[in-house]
Amino acid sequence: MKVPAYITDIQEWQKSFQFSISIRVRFSETDAFGHLNNTNAFVYFEQARTDFYKSLGFMKKWTNEQDDSMVVVADMQCDYLQQIKFDEELKVQVKVHRLGRSSADLHYAAQNEKGILCLTGRGTIVQISKESGRSLAWNEEMREVLLTHTIET
Amino acid sequence: MKVPAYITDIQEWQKSFQFSISIRVRFSETDAFGHLNNTNAFVYFEQARTDFYKSLGFMKKWTNEQDDSMVVVADMQCDYLQQIKFDEELKVQVKVHRLGRSSADLHYAAQNEKGILCLTGRGTIVQISKESGRSLAWNEEMREVLLTHTIET
Amino acid sequence: MKVPAYITDIQEWQKSFQFSISIRVRFSETDAFGHLNNTNAFVYFEQARTDFYKSLGFMKKWTNEQDDSMVVVADMQCDYLQQIKFDEELKVQVKVHRLGRSSADLHYAAQNEKGILCLTGRGTIVQISKESGRSLAWNEEMREVLLTHTIET
Amino acid sequence: MKVPAYITDIQEWQKSFQFSISIRVRFSETDAFGHLNNTNAFVYFEQARTDFYKSLGFMKKWTNEQDDSMVVVADMQCDYLQQIKFDEELKVQVKVHRLGRSSADLHYAAQNEKGILCLTGRGTIVQISKESGRSLAWNEEMREVLLTHTIET
Repeated sequence: MKVPAYITDIQEWQKSFQFSISIRVRFSETDAFGHLNNTNAFVYFEQARTDFYKSLGFMKKWTNEQDDSMVVVADMQCDYLQQIKFDEELKVQVKVHRLGRSSADLHYAAQNEKGILCLTGRGTIVQISKESGRSLAWNEEMREVLLTHTIET
Repeated sequence: MKVPAYITDIQEWQKSFQFSISIRVRFSETDAFGHLNNTNAFVYFEQARTDFYKSLGFMKKWTNEQDDSMVVVADMQCDYLQQIKFDEELKVQVKVHRLGRSSADLHYAAQNEKGILCLTGRGTIVQISKESGRSLAWNEEMREVLLTHTIET
Repeated sequence: MKVPAYITDIQEWQKSFQFSISIRVRFSETDAFGHLNNTNAFVYFEQARTDFYKSLGFMKKWTNEQDDSMVVVADMQCDYLQQIKFDEELKVQVKVHRLGRSSADLHYAAQNEKGILCLTGRGTIVQISKESGRSLAWNEEMREVLLTHTIET
Repeated sequence: MKVPAYITDIQEWQKSFQFSISIRVRFSETDAFGHLNNTNAFVYFEQARTDFYKSLGFMKKWTNEQDDSMVVVADMQCDYLQQIKFDEELKVQVKVHRLGRSSADLHYAAQNEKGILCLTGRGTIVQISKESGRSLAWNEEMREVLLTHTIET
């Protein structure tokens, strides 16, 4: 297996995830080639990411209309290691790989029921101000929460 | 062909549409059965509907954060007459079938490049208040615009 | 509440479902109006339907390339009773309302965590031959299985 | 603007595209943050890519059930430079950046009506055998066609 450039040691990397959700492939997510359409990997990563935000207590803040902060995705990437079929149950994992002033580099992994790694990914998220559109530094509380979930492997 | 209950005379009905858009089937919209996934018919209808709203000058109002009005879908239905494949170019039509106080019954049709009717549909839209969530009567101007596009066939 | 025409007694109807799945609203399924985009109701119904097929033992047959049978959706409709938000957990139910020779009229319901009915729906499915595209009668075994799940309320 | 690592000279890079399609943002593609949901960038890239395949004469071969070849996406990435709103018209471009034995590194760009670059991306596609699942070298004809569209800027 060719390991993506953002992963140093794939074994260590796989062990470093602490948060995961379970997603089962929907029929509407397959395409005429008979497998999961590649675009849906990013839907799965987003679902893991928003559930991760929620577990950190961030989602309430970002979906609160009164609050000036929101979060955007600056970049996303995915490596497709294994074809995924209808009705497969995936364990989709997410972690903070590196923490910035107002951003975080998140890493993603998805494995099937046999424990085979099917998808790996990464992407930078940035907290921004709704009003100015500019990046907004994590406050102390958020920073601490994020740091306890940061594993640079 | 079994004609859906909301259509009286299919020939007259097909001729009664004045507004249409063109949509080409994306690969990501097919499914493992090799055809357009049925759920995407409603994506196409929505696209025709929002373009129709836009042509009437309504979309600006409804997406304006300062304006209390917005529009919701109260019900939607679709009849699948013909299987649709990847890359087919569809002519998707929409019209007002009947006008209510704050609502409208919209009808939809989609035909392929050979002029074969593939999808028919209908659904009620309702203008509501963002604040109260209650229905909001069309104002005089909107009512007039909608009436000129209402064809009860 | 205005009860859709395909429901006789809404209380009886709600009690008649035996099969359900749980679906949580994804962020990518919301739209700029801040709620679940209406087109995704049909994605949820499809998910309930394919899981229902699977529970009946039909899905394996229909996704088997060697088997001539497959299933199509002849029509679908949905009534939107209650706005649905990001991250709500829905109980999506499906049942056979009426059984035909090669078809079945399926009914759908979705309720939120408070037990409030948010979506109701129905639609005809038809078993067809992959080769001829024509309807294919249920065999004895399928018919029996479907009959035990048919509740005409 | 921070230029993604896969782009050397952004000005040269932007000029190097020869193939483009036009895509207008659908309402169902926005999310509760009021903009295009990030996952749909990959739907747009896929649409540009399949139209590109079609223009090269490859799509017919790959969707032909009798032919053993098909194409898969090995990896995909996208950089989000500018927020994209409902109803914006995007020019989505694709080119071959580098050609392999059975693969190709494709680059993508999307700009809005004002000519502002909103999305950049890249990803490797691989031709594979349906039967073995292994990579399948481009034949002479395909190779020549791809080479005339390869611009390593």
